[in-house]
Amino acid sequence: MRDLLPRPTAVHPAPGEFVFTSATGLSGPDDLTAPIRSALSVVPLAPNGTGIEVERDPALQAEAYTLSVTPERIRITAADRCGAFYAAQTLRQLLPDAVWRAAVPAGTRWAVPCGVVEDEPRFSWRGAHLDISRHFMPKREVLRMIDLLAMHKMNRLHLHLTDDQGWRVESHRFPLLHVIGSHRTESMISHYEEDASYDSTPHGGYYTLNDLAEIGAYAEARAITIVPEIDVPGHAAAILAAYPELGSRHDTTYQVLGKWGISRAILSPLPATVDFLTEVFAEILAAVKTPYFHLGGDECVLDDWEANPEIEEYRRSLGLGSMGELHAHFLRELGDRLAEHGCRAVYWDEAYVSGRLRDDSLIMAWRGMQVARRAASAGYDVIATPVVPTYFDYAEVDDANEPLAIGGPITLDDVASFEPAPADWPEEASAHLVGTQFQLWTERIPDGRTLDYRAWPRGCALAEVAWSGSADAEFTGRLTGHLARLDAYGVEYRPLTGPHPWQSGGTGPRRHRPGRIVAADVMTRLDGMTLDAASTRPSM
Amino acid sequence: MRDLLPRPTAVHPAPGEFVFTSATGLSGPDDLTAPIRSALSVVPLAPNGTGIEVERDPALQAEAYTLSVTPERIRITAADRCGAFYAAQTLRQLLPDAVWRAAVPAGTRWAVPCGVVEDEPRFSWRGAHLDISRHFMPKREVLRMIDLLAMHKMNRLHLHLTDDQGWRVESHRFPLLHVIGSHRTESMISHYEEDASYDSTPHGGYYTLNDLAEIGAYAEARAITIVPEIDVPGHAAAILAAYPELGSRHDTTYQVLGKWGISRAILSPLPATVDFLTEVFAEILAAVKTPYFHLGGDECVLDDWEANPEIEEYRRSLGLGSMGELHAHFLRELGDRLAEHGCRAVYWDEAYVSGRLRDDSLIMAWRGMQVARRAASAGYDVIATPVVPTYFDYAEVDDANEPLAIGGPITLDDVASFEPAPADWPEEASAHLVGTQFQLWTERIPDGRTLDYRAWPRGCALAEVAWSGSADAEFTGRLTGHLARLDAYGVEYRPLTGPHPWQSGGTGPRRHRPGRIVAADVMTRLDGMTLDAASTRPSM
Repeated sequence: MRDLLPRPTAVHPAPGEFVFTSATGLSGPDDLTAPIRSALSVVPLAPNGTGIEVERDPALQAEAYTLSVTPERIRITAADRCGAFYAAQTLRQLLPDAVWRAAVPAGTRWAVPCGVVEDEPRFSWRGAHLDISRHFMPKREVLRMIDLLAMHKMNRLHLHLTDDQGWRVESHRFPLLHVIGSHRTESMISHYEEDASYDSTPHGGYYTLNDLAEIGAYAEARAITIVPEIDVPGHAAAILAAYPELGSRHDTTYQVLGKWGISRAILSPLPATVDFLTEVFAEILAAVKTPYFHLGGDECVLDDWEANPEIEEYRRSLGLGSMGELHAHFLRELGDRLAEHGCRAVYWDEAYVSGRLRDDSLIMAWRGMQVARRAASAGYDVIATPVVPTYFDYAEVDDANEPLAIGGPITLDDVASFEPAPADWPEEASAHLVGTQFQLWTERIPDGRTLDYRAWPRGCALAEVAWSGSADAEFTGRLTGHLARLDAYGVEYRPLTGPHPWQSGGTGPRRHRPGRIVAADVMTRLDGMTLDAASTRPSM
Repeated sequence: MRDLLPRPTAVHPAPGEFVFTSATGLSGPDDLTAPIRSALSVVPLAPNGTGIEVERDPALQAEAYTLSVTPERIRITAADRCGAFYAAQTLRQLLPDAVWRAAVPAGTRWAVPCGVVEDEPRFSWRGAHLDISRHFMPKREVLRMIDLLAMHKMNRLHLHLTDDQGWRVESHRFPLLHVIGSHRTESMISHYEEDASYDSTPHGGYYTLNDLAEIGAYAEARAITIVPEIDVPGHAAAILAAYPELGSRHDTTYQVLGKWGISRAILSPLPATVDFLTEVFAEILAAVKTPYFHLGGDECVLDDWEANPEIEEYRRSLGLGSMGELHAHFLRELGDRLAEHGCRAVYWDEAYVSGRLRDDSLIMAWRGMQVARRAASAGYDVIATPVVPTYFDYAEVDDANEPLAIGGPITLDDVASFEPAPADWPEEASAHLVGTQFQLWTERIPDGRTLDYRAWPRGCALAEVAWSGSADAEFTGRLTGHLARLDAYGVEYRPLTGPHPWQSGGTGPRRHRPGRIVAADVMTRLDGMTLDAASTRPSM
């Protein structure tokens, strides 16, 4: 029972193995056997066969399971469908790696070593964030990411559906969002700190609402919750290219940007904007049921609010002392609208600093663990998403042989040794640290192959941190065995020894620029910030 | 019963519909119900339910089926697994388009209109060719292409596994093939007829033998035969970069090329090369069982043979009058080796012109229908693959708004009106025209998204030609309905009205260059060639 990843709570190996025969099948409650049947789709199972027994055990926690293998039978217990699903993932890891393939030649021998696994997750939020705005990823790449997260017992996929560089979901109510907002004419190929240069090639795409419903249903079957993000009021150039009347300036034109960085395009905070977004939320939530909806709130440049008399008048009418408070008010209003759908709002940490949030809001602390601790101590549920080590758009090694990355390094060890709820935190803060997730910002991740390279194996390490707590001394050894599963599934992860020749960035625009942005320096700067949402300056 | 594509032999609609309930399930022989169960994977079926009856009817031809739908039941008959598989594809087309999604929200209503479909294919070879040498496509893109071919009742996937620009399959016996041959340092971004420029970005990748076995098993379950191609003796730069001792020159070095075109790199025809390739064939055939193996034989520049005294001596020792005859001899020897594996050799048409082939060889006539007719009249089984209209790397419209293509146009109508066995052919020639396939050469198809754009909907038209004969007057109308299925599956096909804004090539290196190579001129030139294999001149 080796190389299990993430590490289970307890593993008790025993001699012998269970061998699948033509008579092997599943018995148990339909809702618990379904995820197991699905996970074993390439293993022939007899329709009325026996050998794998699944039982409900209400004494187990949510998501927990036990898996017991003897030569005679496999026995799984779980309190819920998610627990049974995770038992199935562990069972897959104990089967030959071919179980991860889409098809297997007839005659493959399916056997499982004997022993007992007892397992439950440390954190309830074990997630990945995927920015499909900066680079659109076709639906199949999203479905595949869901498969890979499920393999690693992760349970949240946070979809960053809009940013200055593109809006990615159909709207029947406001169709210009996808007609105009979903594409740009070019993309920046220079680094932030270089003279700007572009590829002169259009980029775009969007998911239909039916696509989103499919993604939601596919995720649900794999014990994963979709967390849609409509990032407002900043990062709004794509929305404003479609509906400029929502803007804070009426003397300018907006376009979907090909340049990366923090733009000054910001939605007006007036009631019309809140009403517009409320209708958009309703469309998205009709497609994908979720208890969590992300509103962004990060990196807002409030200059255009300051300069707009109507907004200034609105602020005064509300009795708010600053535009920062209006930022807080705007995000609170949206959170209240989501609450009517039974959704809890999630925000980047600027929104916590602005204040006024509903008590049930969740905070993603990207600017470091100090703000995470403050928000958790204040009673908000917090997800640890500090740039280091959870921003996987940073290179693993800050080396010229890497493909283009914003900066570096964020190493595999940085991720494996990450502690989302440090031991020196007060107990009440730790209790509100609900989990962690990795971020895949895609300015420099133009396609699925590069996505694989950046996500894995660092994603394996974060999965271990989220499920098991910090990686143990055997992590690297277990990971080495685990990589064979990724090979079987067809993941073009970054080899532990560095990129394959065809994965390096070469000498052209895709080359990495070492030393340009150093991850450790970024964290020092962010941790030292005044954490004033209104203080962000535009970088473009 | 509308919008079926490819068009069945006969359709008899009737009033009413069959509605799936919680009691609906399948009954019939396991080998015939398995493909139907798989095709309906997102439709809930009761394990011991009834309503869909599948029966074997030995009177039906291979691949043929009947599908009868009444309000009470669905009845399918087929002589073989392939027929049942195609019945399942038709049934899917009659269900709501959501059946093509990976997951569907609970509560979807599944209903099928009543009527009878009688159906059998016109041609036995209904294929697609995918060049994964010029641009490697990850395994998942190959599996997806298999799904799409299956949807269209196509039954051959021809994988062009090697060319000057890359070798794409693992070899345990000769590992430098994949270690060295699988990647290049750069790719050409200029057009053939422009000054050469490159992207300075490495490219590569390869399938493991286990991947190839998976692809083969996945294809087999979908009634598709994999046709691996090891293109020899020309197009050999990647092989020679790994094993230069197989070359025809020993005073030069070889490298995996980043430039497109016909290179002069050619394998030596000596017995050592035949032995080497025989071992490679054995490795590939151990992974993927297939009755067909493609040997290439096209576009050989024989200058280096002429200049090599050892090869000249070998030719004389065999009593052969020319290097063209030695080309024929070499390809014949390889065909004989394949025959020992129970494989029929497939060649591009130059090999037919060279002569000496085994009688059971298959010829792909790319240089036009004149050579197709000659080869078929001579008794060889022929697959119609003329550049126009089966080379889908040509643009649909020769317009600057298209993404980069080698030339154009090859329109949807060109494909839909294609007749692989023209009425004026003698009957004995028509009898040997076994089918057709489209070609996806990938010099200008760098990724899966572009592959979608080039393949579809022209692939729909070729599927109709291959299954039903030339498209009928209702083709465009049926296609319009069919595109909703591609939408549901997530295919980024070329819209009938032209590219989405993000699909055009922009103003940079990805822009199409209209007028550079005109498809009709190419066919005129190829049809007028002396068809002497030894006459090909290098273009690089």
